[in-house]
This record gives sequence, structure tokens and C-alpha cells, in this order.
Amino acid sequence: MAEPTNLQELLQSNKKIFDETIMDFLPRFSDNKEIQSLYEMMRDYPSRGGKGLRGTICLLWCQLFGGTKSRALLTSSALELFQNWILIHDDIEDGSEMRRGLPALHRKYGVELAINAGDALHGKMWELLLRNIDDLGSDLSLAILSEFAVMLDHTTEGQQMELSWNYTNKWDISEKDYLSMVTKKSAWYTCITPCRLGLHLSVARSNSGEKSFSDILSQIVDFGTHLGIAFQIVDDVLNLVADESKYGKEILGDLYEGKRTLMIVHLLQSMEPAKKERVLKDLSKPRSLKTATEMNAIFQLMKDSGSILYAREVASKHSSQAMKLFDELVTKYPVDKTAFLETRSLFQYLTQRDY
Amino acid sequence: MAEPTNLQELLQSNKKIFDETIMDFLPRFSDNKEIQSLYEMMRDYPSRGGKGLRGTICLLWCQLFGGTKSRALLTSSALELFQNWILIHDDIEDGSEMRRGLPALHRKYGVELAINAGDALHGKMWELLLRNIDDLGSDLSLAILSEFAVMLDHTTEGQQMELSWNYTNKWDISEKDYLSMVTKKSAWYTCITPCRLGLHLSVARSNSGEKSFSDILSQIVDFGTHLGIAFQIVDDVLNLVADESKYGKEILGDLYEGKRTLMIVHLLQSMEPAKKERVLKDLSKPRSLKTATEMNAIFQLMKDSGSILYAREVASKHSSQAMKLFDELVTKYPVDKTAFLETRSLFQYLTQRDY
Repeated sequence: MAEPTNLQELLQSNKKIFDETIMDFLPRFSDNKEIQSLYEMMRDYPSRGGKGLRGTICLLWCQLFGGTKSRALLTSSALELFQNWILIHDDIEDGSEMRRGLPALHRKYGVELAINAGDALHGKMWELLLRNIDDLGSDLSLAILSEFAVMLDHTTEGQQMELSWNYTNKWDISEKDYLSMVTKKSAWYTCITPCRLGLHLSVARSNSGEKSFSDILSQIVDFGTHLGIAFQIVDDVLNLVADESKYGKEILGDLYEGKRTLMIVHLLQSMEPAKKERVLKDLSKPRSLKTATEMNAIFQLMKDSGSILYAREVASKHSSQAMKLFDELVTKYPVDKTAFLETRSLFQYLTQRDY
Repeated sequence: MAEPTNLQELLQSNKKIFDETIMDFLPRFSDNKEIQSLYEMMRDYPSRGGKGLRGTICLLWCQLFGGTKSRALLTSSALELFQNWILIHDDIEDGSEMRRGLPALHRKYGVELAINAGDALHGKMWELLLRNIDDLGSDLSLAILSEFAVMLDHTTEGQQMELSWNYTNKWDISEKDYLSMVTKKSAWYTCITPCRLGLHLSVARSNSGEKSFSDILSQIVDFGTHLGIAFQIVDDVLNLVADESKYGKEILGDLYEGKRTLMIVHLLQSMEPAKKERVLKDLSKPRSLKTATEMNAIFQLMKDSGSILYAREVASKHSSQAMKLFDELVTKYPVDKTAFLETRSLFQYLTQRDY
């Protein structure tokens, strides 16, 4: 199995290629001062680092089923662009202060310009995907565009669920509701769609029949859902316990933002009514009125009530289920051995990382 | 020439078809309460009326060069969807209160949910365009997607120019700057791209050679720029002088929003420094601090200084130039007579309407 070091090297080298592709593609210079400033905004998040997880998953799945890395390069880079434009809007919607260790885009330029820059970058994502035509032909390019449309449907639906809970100050959320939100908001764009795109880009459609190709596509939805859920829970746990210098976001930021996480769902369900009311009062305050003392107290309650441990267990259960389904899937097909080991190693990292 | 009544009938009957196409296409029901609410938000602006101008231009240009209306239906409806999602974001960015006679979407649901609903609707625009494949084949469908990408580039660049002027409180804007902003922000999506799309959808590519086809595409940019400029100036004048019940937006709303219009540019250039400083002080106030007395006083100054008359003259000049170029263009090709008359009548309406 690939060592963690090799995985980090793989991620870094892929990330470098995505960055080059994106930075070459995005507009850079304009004679007009304002438009020049838009270009700088569009290039801001893509230049901030990040791990290149989603693009790498797409590349690996292309290789897994016999495709080459180069075939999947534009599509993988477009996945990274998706992540970048949607984070610009997410950060506004969630009232986030920081992104990848720097002020969120709307904190630098204001909400109005940041919404527009997100839209401009969103457009560029589709434009980059249209460049697939020369290498991949029209039909495959169009199939890829359709996958992006489906991904965006799920992501915005998940975001709506989460934002609505915030907007209506709803806290009585079941674990089922939470998992449904996370599947839509995270699993699709982090796991399911990247794998499905990689499969489209591989030679699987010509090598396997139509039937088994569409079988694999739907199996990806199954295991990708479990994987994405595990990924998001781990991400939310890290928001509480990670090393801030590595993590790049504000620690306990989710509590300040009033984000509904599995830990919060568990904590509230395990509390007696009077104490719960007090916690809800603090959680429901606008961000600016929340104090560090209050947020740390809630964090302490989570630890005391075993909510963090519980969340880690749920993540672990979904992670195991994902790996089991993944292993079952790949044993049925003559997959590329190296890509298999790298994918497995990446999937394990997704759910076991510490930053 | 087609009578105005016929034009209104044409617009209304087209609008009805676009609405049906869009409403059939957009998701309607979800078991999940929050997602159901997203669907209602996505269907809100498209259900509010509007004129269907951009979709109609696209239909007419398809017919003008020998295509059928049905070929252009999805694309025309996608243009209307573009208008709808970008207005959701525009209304947030401009701080608009009203849209088509009702509260703006973010006034009903909050900024966070409205940004996300705009993104969801934006995704649906591309998804609708992907449905072109069955009827139009891959190559033409992809050419249409590219036109949309270019349109979005221009529109977001124009929006950035306008928002930046607002954000930096810049008022020393030349007429050239203003025209450049309006070309990007309005002319592309209102005139240039709808005409170009119609041409793509017609039979012109097969009937004319590649050379003359691309000649027409670039001539559309020329006359569409003039037409779009005239359209936007007229729209801005109407914001000052229209009948509010017909217009559907707040009268003098542009003054409250601090919008840089040709009338403002002209007024500021024609004022002596001391008086100008006073006007700038009022114009620069945040919306909530502006009073009706102050805004009416600025409106009066515009009338006194001939700024509105001047703007009408500039609009008229661009309108005439657009019609001249349009007439020159169509006389070179064997265009459909009925579509020609309807298009001409529509173009005249765009720049001579009173609501």
C-alpha cells in the first residue's frame, strides 16, 4: 500500500498541475482597472493552496479504469474551480471570516463584489469544461457537463437545508436529517461526482458494456455517500480539535457560525431540557455576540457528553462501509493496481486525517 | 411594419412559451421541506412576469435566417433563465428592494438563501442548454454553450465595473467609462448574445459559407453594442420618469442605489464645484440615510441641467446607428421578411418604450 508520504507527494504534485491549468486559463490582465481587480479576485482563492482532493480523486478514477491522467486534467481542474467559486459564496452565506489561513474574499472586497466574482468564476468552470471537446469529442464532453449540473443540484440543495436551519433557528435536527444534508452538501462534490467523472474519462465505457458501466456509476453513489459523510464529520471534528496553523480555518469557527454538526445534534439530544435551553440560547446568538467563554463551554460539554467520540464512531462506521463497498466494486473489474492502491490510500486519508 | 399591438402580442405569446418551458423544467416538489422551499425560490422570479425580450430576440434571429421557432425554444428559455438568476444576485449587489412589482428575493428570504438560490438557478440554465443535444446535435449545442460562457464573462465584468465605482465611491466617471460598462453589463446579454444565438440556431451556417457566417457574428457585436447602449440608457431614464405601476421597480430607485447613469455623469460634469460637492455628499450616503427630498432635488437638477434630455439624445443616436447597421446587415442576405419586420419593430420598441 502507498505510504502516507507518497500520498502527500501525489496530492502535492497533482495540486501543482491543477493550479497551473487553472492559472493559465483564468484571465490575468485587463487595461481596465476595475476588470483587472475582478481578475485578481477570481485568481485569489485558487492561489491560496488547498489539497486538490477532488481533482485527485477524479484523476485516480480515470487511471483506475485504464484512462490516462492527461485525459482527465481539464475536468479535474474544473472540479477544483467548482470548489473555489462555491467557497466564495459559501463563505458569505456562512459568515466565515477566514479561508485557507487568510481573510475570506468578502472580508477583503465586500459582499457585493465577492458574489459577482463567484459568478464569474462559476462561468469559467463551464468554459474550462468546454475545452474538453478537442481531446474528448462532443459526446463525452457533454456527459461530463451533465455530471457537473447534477453535482451542482445536490450541492445547492444541501446548502439550502443547512442555511434554512440557520435562518429559522432550527436545532431539533435528527441524525437522519443531518446525514441527508451532508450527503447533498458534501458527499456529491467531494466524492461521488469526482469518482463518476473519472469513470466517464477512463476507457471503461468502451471496455465494459453499457450495463456494467451504468452499474459502476450507481455503485459509486452508494460508497461515495458513505465516504463523503465520513469525510464531512471528520472535517467538522477537526474544526473543534485541529491545530489551527495546519487547519487554515478558525478553530471552533463552526460554533460561532452556529453550524449544525453531528456533535451538536448528539449533544442536544443527550441534554436535559433546562441545560439544553441555555446552550441553545448561546448557540442562537448572532456571531458577534458570542463570547469565547460561551463557545469553549459548549465545546467542553461536547467532550463531557461524548459527542465528539460519538461523531468519530459514526465517521468510522461510514468510512468502513465505504471501503468495503469500494473493495467489492473494484474486485469485479480488472483495475489498474497502482491507481487502486493510491485511491485506497487517499480514501483512508480522507477519513483519518488530522488537518 | 408590424404595429406595436402586434409586437406586444408577439412578446406576450413568446413569454408564455418561455414560461411554460422554464416552469416545466424547474423542479417543483420535494419531500424535504427545506429543498421544497429552494424550489419555490427558484421558481419565484421566473413566475413574476417580465417581457421575454431576450428570448424573443433569439427566436426572431433564428427565424430571420431561415430557422424555425421550435429549434430556438430551449436556448431562448435559457436566456430568460440567465436573466432571472443574475437578477437575484444583482438585486443583492445593488441593494434593490423591489423586482417586478414585488419585494426582491433577498428581501423575502434573506441574502444567504437568495445567493444560493441564484447559484442553483444558474446551474439549471446550463442544464437546460444541455437538453439541446437531442434536437440540435452535439456540435451546435456546444457552440451555444460557448456563447453563454462569453456572455457571462462580459456581464460579470460590467457588473464589477459598476459595483467597484459604488464600493470606492467613485463619481468622476467619463461618458466613455459609462458606455464601456453598459456595453459589458447590458448590451451583451440583452442584444448581442441573443442575436448571435439566434444566428447559430438558424440555417445560416449551412446556407452561407463559414466566412460570411462569422462576418455576421461580428457585425452583430457592432450593432448590438449600439442597441444595448440605447436600451440601457432608456431603461435608466425610465427609472426616473416612468409610471411606477407599469414599471414594476421603485421610481428614483437608481438614485437611492447610487447607480452611475448617463444622467448622473452629465449632471456632475455640468455643475460648478461647490454645488457638485453637495450633490455628491447626498448621492454618497448609504441608502437608508437618503431622503426623498434629497433625491427629488437631484432629479430636479437633472431636469434643469438638461441631463435627461441629453441622455435621451445619446440613446437616440445609438439607436439610429444600430438600426442603420442592422438594415445594412440584413439587406446583404435573403432574410425572412416577416421576421425582419418583427425584429425591426422590436428593436425600435427597445429604445422607444415608455415602461
